[in-house]
Amino acid sequence: MVPIEFRKGKIRFIDVTKLPEELVYVETDNVERLANAIEKMEIRGAPAIGVAAALCLAMVAYNSEAKSYNELAEEVRKAAERLRRTRPTAYNLFWSINRMLEKLGKLKDKPLDYVKSEMVKEALNIQLEDIRNNIAIGKYGANLIEDGDTVLTHCNAGSLATAGFGTALGVIRYAYHVQKKKIKIIATETRPLLQGARLTAWELIQEGIPVTLITDNMVGYVMSKGLVSKIVVGADRILLDGRTANKIGTYSIAVLAKHHNIPFYVAAPTSTIDPESKDIPIEHRKPYEVKTVLGKISIAPKEVNVLNPAFDITPPEFITAIITEKGIAYPPYNESLRKILGLN
Amino acid sequence: MVPIEFRKGKIRFIDVTKLPEELVYVETDNVERLANAIEKMEIRGAPAIGVAAALCLAMVAYNSEAKSYNELAEEVRKAAERLRRTRPTAYNLFWSINRMLEKLGKLKDKPLDYVKSEMVKEALNIQLEDIRNNIAIGKYGANLIEDGDTVLTHCNAGSLATAGFGTALGVIRYAYHVQKKKIKIIATETRPLLQGARLTAWELIQEGIPVTLITDNMVGYVMSKGLVSKIVVGADRILLDGRTANKIGTYSIAVLAKHHNIPFYVAAPTSTIDPESKDIPIEHRKPYEVKTVLGKISIAPKEVNVLNPAFDITPPEFITAIITEKGIAYPPYNESLRKILGLN
Repeated sequence: MVPIEFRKGKIRFIDVTKLPEELVYVETDNVERLANAIEKMEIRGAPAIGVAAALCLAMVAYNSEAKSYNELAEEVRKAAERLRRTRPTAYNLFWSINRMLEKLGKLKDKPLDYVKSEMVKEALNIQLEDIRNNIAIGKYGANLIEDGDTVLTHCNAGSLATAGFGTALGVIRYAYHVQKKKIKIIATETRPLLQGARLTAWELIQEGIPVTLITDNMVGYVMSKGLVSKIVVGADRILLDGRTANKIGTYSIAVLAKHHNIPFYVAAPTSTIDPESKDIPIEHRKPYEVKTVLGKISIAPKEVNVLNPAFDITPPEFITAIITEKGIAYPPYNESLRKILGLN
Repeated sequence: MVPIEFRKGKIRFIDVTKLPEELVYVETDNVERLANAIEKMEIRGAPAIGVAAALCLAMVAYNSEAKSYNELAEEVRKAAERLRRTRPTAYNLFWSINRMLEKLGKLKDKPLDYVKSEMVKEALNIQLEDIRNNIAIGKYGANLIEDGDTVLTHCNAGSLATAGFGTALGVIRYAYHVQKKKIKIIATETRPLLQGARLTAWELIQEGIPVTLITDNMVGYVMSKGLVSKIVVGADRILLDGRTANKIGTYSIAVLAKHHNIPFYVAAPTSTIDPESKDIPIEHRKPYEVKTVLGKISIAPKEVNVLNPAFDITPPEFITAIITEKGIAYPPYNESLRKILGLN
């Protein structure tokens, strides 16, 4: 499953808002169209957003008709500014844009054709690294999963949320397909946009991995009945102290997991770890996402007030371990995550 | 708001599955139609189901063309059997059917017209008592609510779930309208059938009580942000030890409430208390309720497995108090609930 591709100056992506009903590919060379795709969550999942932003900046460079480096650099920086304004929480977006701009900075005074091809190469590297990292996360994480486990996951941290393979679903894929462990999955539907029902259930069915769908409010019930033995979720931003932003509902699951003594794992590449911030901005999205289902049917009185935070923050004391492509971090995260990032 | 009425041998009820889009009344004198209405949750909420069953048995007696008491009694008992098979968890259903049959037993050898009118009187008594009880619950419960509180409620335990006024929403109504306390409500949408989004939000908006809608997975978030000061929910069955069955998701909320030190109250009439059972049967409903939204749109792959328990059970250690029409029960419930029921 390649959710996003660079194709001769255009970007082709799967519009995941149409799944599982239709598998729709969109092809564009327009920055505004791509920014909209991220805002509308046609492209979503922190790693996928990071890859999309890198490919978008490569596309701008590749298609540029600039006559000088400065002119080209200006075009790329303008696109970067637009992309930065799409979604505030996912750290991979900023990480990936910064990496592309850093690369751009190093190409000053180089021939324009060289600048273009190097920018494309850098973006493709980011994309390939993400897939490689996901497989490494899968490998590390799968060792935490036992034969016979039922793993609960929230939202979608699969191929569709990354460059491919997935983070939380990468762990599940590796345990199931490579290690041949007999595991079952429970997927939460993940209101308001139902990424669990639409995307995670779909991905797992495609691969023949047994999956049972529940509504978000059944999480306590399945835990109390002994139906869940492990939890693995993705992440949108991880601070050095271990505080983890992920799809709204993750915090509730983590508190419930702790109460039921169920291990709670976060799976994410190191590009999700924000080494600088002291806090995580939480994106609040429009009320219609809650008042309707996928904008298709209205489910509440039109005049009702709504809260719609897209993410919540799980404190480190609820996280058993954080699985990265460079190994597994255990508490205290201030030490283990620094070590993984090579920081002092 | 009178959700259900006895009208000259027919029963008229609001089909709550149509709300908030349409206010549709259904009128019928057919037992099977009423049983279906309960099964399809056109009539729902434990007290409302109890009232509907009582009115249905009164209707059968009232319309009977039987020539003898035994013949009439047989018709009523047959209807009672059908109604008992509609929904296994709500205790009020069984309580109300038992009370009607007990009344019927006492009317043996009485003239048929007298039997009929007494059966109707008994059902109307059950209905009126429910409204009176709800107001009493409101009065007791409102004293637990403070000016400035934000009260989170789950599912719908309002007028539409009772004969009128409501249990959890009765407490809120009494605190807001009678005691004039400035309170705000957070309503969970309550998947899969969205009673919170459709019914609770609608009822509160009708009455001008400030309400904010959240998805079920935002419960932990709002608690962690200090946005909830009290929780009040209804109940479908309460055992003498305090174990409480209520809409799926209630248990998760109770565990999260305990973690955040937020008082968690259950509001229900004594007709919800089951003095005999040692366990509570949990109704599992059809997968399409989870795979679709209200049967209107599909949100998941058709072949996915689904869990759909309609209720979960909250253990007594998570319940701060149980509010009944006869007063407030505090732990240990084995003592306080027995006292309220007048048991030894």
